[in-house]
Amino acid sequence: MADVRVAVFGASGYSGEELLRILVKHSRVEIRAITSRQYAGQAVASVFPRFAETGLQFVFPDVDAIAPGLDIAFLSLPHGLASEYARPLLDKGVKVVDISADFRLRDPSVYERYYKGSHPAPELLPEAVYGLPEIYRDQLRQARLVACAGCYPTSIIIPLAPLLAADLIETEGIVACSMSGVSGAGRKVDLPYIFPECNESVRPYGVSGHRHLPEIEQELTAAAGERVVRMNFIPHLAPMSRGIHSTVIARAKAGPGEGPFVDVWRQCYGDEPFIRILPPGELADTKHVAYSNMAEVGIRCDPHTGNVVISSAIDNLTKCASGQAVQCMNVLCGLPETAALDILG
Amino acid sequence: MADVRVAVFGASGYSGEELLRILVKHSRVEIRAITSRQYAGQAVASVFPRFAETGLQFVFPDVDAIAPGLDIAFLSLPHGLASEYARPLLDKGVKVVDISADFRLRDPSVYERYYKGSHPAPELLPEAVYGLPEIYRDQLRQARLVACAGCYPTSIIIPLAPLLAADLIETEGIVACSMSGVSGAGRKVDLPYIFPECNESVRPYGVSGHRHLPEIEQELTAAAGERVVRMNFIPHLAPMSRGIHSTVIARAKAGPGEGPFVDVWRQCYGDEPFIRILPPGELADTKHVAYSNMAEVGIRCDPHTGNVVISSAIDNLTKCASGQAVQCMNVLCGLPETAALDILG
Amino acid sequence: MADVRVAVFGASGYSGEELLRILVKHSRVEIRAITSRQYAGQAVASVFPRFAETGLQFVFPDVDAIAPGLDIAFLSLPHGLASEYARPLLDKGVKVVDISADFRLRDPSVYERYYKGSHPAPELLPEAVYGLPEIYRDQLRQARLVACAGCYPTSIIIPLAPLLAADLIETEGIVACSMSGVSGAGRKVDLPYIFPECNESVRPYGVSGHRHLPEIEQELTAAAGERVVRMNFIPHLAPMSRGIHSTVIARAKAGPGEGPFVDVWRQCYGDEPFIRILPPGELADTKHVAYSNMAEVGIRCDPHTGNVVISSAIDNLTKCASGQAVQCMNVLCGLPETAALDILG
Amino acid sequence: MADVRVAVFGASGYSGEELLRILVKHSRVEIRAITSRQYAGQAVASVFPRFAETGLQFVFPDVDAIAPGLDIAFLSLPHGLASEYARPLLDKGVKVVDISADFRLRDPSVYERYYKGSHPAPELLPEAVYGLPEIYRDQLRQARLVACAGCYPTSIIIPLAPLLAADLIETEGIVACSMSGVSGAGRKVDLPYIFPECNESVRPYGVSGHRHLPEIEQELTAAAGERVVRMNFIPHLAPMSRGIHSTVIARAKAGPGEGPFVDVWRQCYGDEPFIRILPPGELADTKHVAYSNMAEVGIRCDPHTGNVVISSAIDNLTKCASGQAVQCMNVLCGLPETAALDILG
Repeated sequence: MADVRVAVFGASGYSGEELLRILVKHSRVEIRAITSRQYAGQAVASVFPRFAETGLQFVFPDVDAIAPGLDIAFLSLPHGLASEYARPLLDKGVKVVDISADFRLRDPSVYERYYKGSHPAPELLPEAVYGLPEIYRDQLRQARLVACAGCYPTSIIIPLAPLLAADLIETEGIVACSMSGVSGAGRKVDLPYIFPECNESVRPYGVSGHRHLPEIEQELTAAAGERVVRMNFIPHLAPMSRGIHSTVIARAKAGPGEGPFVDVWRQCYGDEPFIRILPPGELADTKHVAYSNMAEVGIRCDPHTGNVVISSAIDNLTKCASGQAVQCMNVLCGLPETAALDILG
Repeated sequence: MADVRVAVFGASGYSGEELLRILVKHSRVEIRAITSRQYAGQAVASVFPRFAETGLQFVFPDVDAIAPGLDIAFLSLPHGLASEYARPLLDKGVKVVDISADFRLRDPSVYERYYKGSHPAPELLPEAVYGLPEIYRDQLRQARLVACAGCYPTSIIIPLAPLLAADLIETEGIVACSMSGVSGAGRKVDLPYIFPECNESVRPYGVSGHRHLPEIEQELTAAAGERVVRMNFIPHLAPMSRGIHSTVIARAKAGPGEGPFVDVWRQCYGDEPFIRILPPGELADTKHVAYSNMAEVGIRCDPHTGNVVISSAIDNLTKCASGQAVQCMNVLCGLPETAALDILG
Repeated sequence: MADVRVAVFGASGYSGEELLRILVKHSRVEIRAITSRQYAGQAVASVFPRFAETGLQFVFPDVDAIAPGLDIAFLSLPHGLASEYARPLLDKGVKVVDISADFRLRDPSVYERYYKGSHPAPELLPEAVYGLPEIYRDQLRQARLVACAGCYPTSIIIPLAPLLAADLIETEGIVACSMSGVSGAGRKVDLPYIFPECNESVRPYGVSGHRHLPEIEQELTAAAGERVVRMNFIPHLAPMSRGIHSTVIARAKAGPGEGPFVDVWRQCYGDEPFIRILPPGELADTKHVAYSNMAEVGIRCDPHTGNVVISSAIDNLTKCASGQAVQCMNVLCGLPETAALDILG
Repeated sequence: MADVRVAVFGASGYSGEELLRILVKHSRVEIRAITSRQYAGQAVASVFPRFAETGLQFVFPDVDAIAPGLDIAFLSLPHGLASEYARPLLDKGVKVVDISADFRLRDPSVYERYYKGSHPAPELLPEAVYGLPEIYRDQLRQARLVACAGCYPTSIIIPLAPLLAADLIETEGIVACSMSGVSGAGRKVDLPYIFPECNESVRPYGVSGHRHLPEIEQELTAAAGERVVRMNFIPHLAPMSRGIHSTVIARAKAGPGEGPFVDVWRQCYGDEPFIRILPPGELADTKHVAYSNMAEVGIRCDPHTGNVVISSAIDNLTKCASGQAVQCMNVLCGLPETAALDILG
């Protein structure tokens, strides 16, 4: 008998597919419902052939019908829409793990500025816990509403938070150059994402004012003990399907050498099952984490400038999205944190 | 009758292939010899099938046999080796366009530090002209020895030099994140470059002390009127065949808005046939310059931090290497600068 | 002064872009108009940044305004729509080079079966010349209306037609497995063509009844002296941007060895500027023809089965589409056939 | 306590990496040794960073030291070398699961012809069981020596064997066009496999006399009740990392329609956990099986020619190699056949 009964709201995108890929082999989970307005009534396999053997079906997202007896609802919906489901689900006693951006920013006015619209459920913000277990594990154990960390933020917060907390890098002048695979845009049918537009192409986008910027700064500022972190975040699209690589440049306050930085990572993350700390001087590679829930982090000092170069690699659909959502659920439900996630990529 | 008789020394790599691709359709050029120790005696088409129709053959790199009557020798050889050919060729009255790194650094002690060995021909350094026609056109007209600019340097110097010269950005704290296609490593048979190691992989390398760093700093310092530029240069390997994208972050001394920066580019480069200045706020894409000799440059201000984000895209085999070498030759020989290069990619 | 004044109808797709890329550097051509309903009034560079330097603009496709003084109209339009423009253009004395499929099939009832609709201009079919210069050069010289060969057909007809004409292979039992890059689907914004759906994916499609099948059979039957060729044609989508590779298996009527087959190719194509005949036993590679107007063909006998394996590689946007269209125009207008096409890829 | 103690001989290639990826999460398996001559004494993570968390080390392949107490030895070694280890391991009571080609061909003279050398251990051939559990499950239960099926053979035998056994297709005139990702060549450092040589490239190779041909024909002939199957097998290299797609064309003896063919597949494979039978008329896609042990098969009739087009997709490192090896071990050792393989890709 399963310990946890779950539903996935909005499962026809890549995050939804990845979430199902993990949940169907989670031995402690029973999938009660998978919703899709567009595909309701069809087999999940009609959209994602890999699920042919599961017999799973899409149903219409009817909260009243789905909520009874449910423990956890994953929301893999567009921002804005997720909030509309969170309220009634919580009211019916269902805990919510939201993969959208709706509950990540604590200040609704920041949400309004970056997401171009008033926040749909500001009253829920105070209780939302940011879904990054390596940092918020204790709060997650008690949470009713989890706001899973975004993909770029995960790749940047994990390596930087401990270094800022330990005061090893300056809060000023941080630059992050991130490169994302195309699935990071979702299963979006739009000209910039067709194969001939992406192949052999590297290009920055959203250079000033990307929606993940306030989320990153909020969390880094918290890590730095409320010293304000204001940074330059530059996402790029790279010709690959999966993976995010972030290269972060910061001014070192420790050193010489990578030792003090790696030591802090080891203290904070030494027992973390999903963080791989590379040997001093080695840097991360997206290929090492593909299809896994691992975050790989490395650091190299640049004595020429006095900077440190921090490099992280994460699978944008797993650790940055669906894998992390399951990790949060495992914490929330008191299951082993690595359950269904112990794949080596 | 051809105006210019040329030889290509070391033509079995990707730069050599690209050089031949351009030279065979250059109506003012006669190719006298194409050398390869490894393939001497074989048809060029046995290595590069696209040249089947040309009937070209590789010959042994015998300077005595090749030099008589020759106007220009292109050296597409490993660093160190190029210098050995430059001396005897110059002595026999042949002008040399060197694609290697041997004559790019003015200070031989810097060469020694970065290339791990004493400079093979320091006496030639004073007369070497840096092969970036947009900046050194006048000197190139009189040159006997051209040191073609490196690939990463071209992508960074072109957008930054005018902004430093006009004092629009700080010389301190510049960060450059560059992403190169795999052909940038040459036609190198080595584990990191096989397809399954590169595909779905983004990774930084050579983070402190890449050989192109002193070359970039030398030229940017010159552009800045000898105010020293010391920067953080972080190259990455991206899963594509061709192309370099550089994202450069610098502190703005002008603004608000991109106007003043783009204006300076337009003043400097408005008539340049191989520089495309994007509208203010738009950024570059490697796919726009593939197989062409164009450099695409764009800029976006980030009011959040007071930085500017500069983006450039170049085909690493053309504008950054062989195309630029031919452009230099055209200047050197008084031919139209765009001859054989007027392809739109 | 230009010899030929041309207009391009429907230039916002990949074939249109490639056509412009070739025409803008054709020294004997003046581009009078480039049409696009969607982008009329905008710079071509707003869609394809590589044309920023040309200053070209899209205009509305108004035949009355564009036809006067025009020599050639290229139609790079969807099938069905092309016919609507052909009639009025021909009436105004403009010769038409059509890249769509509208005039390729001689029998309008076959068109109806495969294109699901009655032929929009059957009265023009008798005078349409199939646009494959290597086979229809003489007829093209007099043509008013050219129906450029399709991409898969070009890759299959070029190697097979001479072998069937010389009776070296059986007309029965031919199988063609073709693999196309994604640009072959056009600049189409549809789920199957976004990057994560194409990358790491090889898949057949249109296995029975692809629209190019009757075109291939029509031309091979003609080549075989009206002995009916009925074949199995299986297109696949491969994770690349450009290129078509066709592997054709047929029963040999000659041999042993590749000699007789290659001899026939050499007789037919030995002087063709755009056909590369590989040495006996060697097979084609899409990478050898990228960005060029070349068709590469090779053959290998399989003594184990008595079959021959024929392999061809073509750039689907150049030799299979826009390059071939310009080649046809060159023939039509009495210009050197290789004008503006003499690029080695 | 683990049920099965295993060693992996030769684990520094892609098959070895994939094998470890599966074995480390197999709850019933204890990995006793991982050998590599080249890397003995180093951490496995030094070659494959994803194993950093396992602490595994490479050791020298010393059979005497490794065999005691061992149940199963996986041989992930080059052909020829595998046999040298098989003999002493069997002598010491260790069962052998060989991923190389050494024991696949029953007739040593065929081995000699295709592998250019006399068979190194012909006396072991009679007891070797062909490692394709869907067909040889009963024999595998008793086996001491398993010759795991090759990658192309797996993709072709699975769909064809039942159709030949049921006499639904002709044994004559079968053509198989297969496309493989580059990891199929192994972790081989050779010019044809570097990224710029593979990207944007589709090319056939080994067209007559590929080593997998006799293996395929041996098994299809067996399936056909010893009616000889002689076929044309044409492998291609495609620009992807993982995956094999095979398109097989055969003359139908049943029909009309796909029904009878799919019915036979359902009878044979309806309960197989690793075979996905697509609905009639749908064809396979490598992307659906990436990183999984699934074989996806589909069929489409071509009434135009009377042929059937059969399509299969398999991950060349999993179902075609390491996944299948573990599946064989599970059968051999009486473990659940899906243990450690129940990943959905």
